Amino acid sequence: MSLPDYLYTVDQLPSRLIEAAVDQIATLPGIGRRTALRLALSLLRKDPERVHQLADALKAMSDGVKPCDVCHNLTEDNICSICNSTGRDANTICVVEDIRDLLAIESLGNYRGLYHVLGGVISPMDGIGPSDLFIQTLIERVSSTTEKTEVIFALSATMEGETTSFYLFKKLNTLNTTVTSLARGVAVGESLQYADEATLSRSIENRTAYKAQ
Amino acid sequence: MSLPDYLYTVDQLPSRLIEAAVDQIATLPGIGRRTALRLALSLLRKDPERVHQLADALKAMSDGVKPCDVCHNLTEDNICSICNSTGRDANTICVVEDIRDLLAIESLGNYRGLYHVLGGVISPMDGIGPSDLFIQTLIERVSSTTEKTEVIFALSATMEGETTSFYLFKKLNTLNTTVTSLARGVAVGESLQYADEATLSRSIENRTAYKAQ
Repeated sequence: MSLPDYLYTVDQLPSRLIEAAVDQIATLPGIGRRTALRLALSLLRKDPERVHQLADALKAMSDGVKPCDVCHNLTEDNICSICNSTGRDANTICVVEDIRDLLAIESLGNYRGLYHVLGGVISPMDGIGPSDLFIQTLIERVSSTTEKTEVIFALSATMEGETTSFYLFKKLNTLNTTVTSLARGVAVGESLQYADEATLSRSIENRTAYKAQ
Repeated sequence: MSLPDYLYTVDQLPSRLIEAAVDQIATLPGIGRRTALRLALSLLRKDPERVHQLADALKAMSDGVKPCDVCHNLTEDNICSICNSTGRDANTICVVEDIRDLLAIESLGNYRGLYHVLGGVISPMDGIGPSDLFIQTLIERVSSTTEKTEVIFALSATMEGETTSFYLFKKLNTLNTTVTSLARGVAVGESLQYADEATLSRSIENRTAYKAQ
């Protein structure tokens, strides 16, 4: 049974403790009061010991996980396991918006460089400027080494992503770097007739030498 | 950005603490690993103090809320505020499947009797028999008073709900009770042409004296 709309008003709830829990659960993104109440009632059907395990896991994660001092990936130490790895190419830095983008690239298993998590993209509409992102630490990373660094922009192909890439390019271009960007083109498995104009145009402009697979 | 499918495999997560939290969040109904990871990452963007508040609210609810000894509504005491209320009609008991049904009726604000939460309906397909529900305690409640009790069946108009109503009727019929059921009929605001056959048939069969509103 789905909850009817009038249950949005939780002043009818039989306990302040349930109300407090619903209030807290509803602070999570994408979870409204209705879903929060459903989750709270489902927790009440569980053994309290199980609920303690859940609550303790959330606390332990929140207390124990912090951003890597170097690349702002999440880690339990000061430096994350990727930055600490001796087997990776320290002269290649892949710039991503978000930890989930890092996870997506990492799960491919074939990228052997390091990362730099910006924590967002420049978006004047949302009031996010360059100083709100980890851009200065990227410039310091690149400046601190005497070797030439390749910086790969792996940002979304949106206006905000492109703006951020351009801003970073202007900052990094004067340093000892090669700046590259993810290829834009027709997606693997996609029919040409369904590709949008901008993508198709970019895919012709940036055509590559044919390699038999 | 929505999470791609390959993030279902969480062995790539940068921290065991995140994995443990994702595992715990994913035990909630309707929340898969993908949503659990999204929620975990959103918690990591919060101040740890806020996460502790959330976790403590869940613990406090789970520890402090229990079923009412009489009607199995949720309460922080032994007897819930509805059963304890002196202003309500103790000789009318509304039988509901679930606490959310109780909340729905209670939010109307015009029912002044008590409740009895069964904790489900008889459903042989799901292995739920009469002994899995709070049926015996309902019979004891009705038997313990010398006054005539009205028992209102407010169960879903499904096969399981009807089966449960019939089972309860056979048990209660021999006691000092009047047994009633929620009216089945055309919903308020519904066009007759969209009402299903069974509903329309019941609404003719159980037609009521016309009252000018």
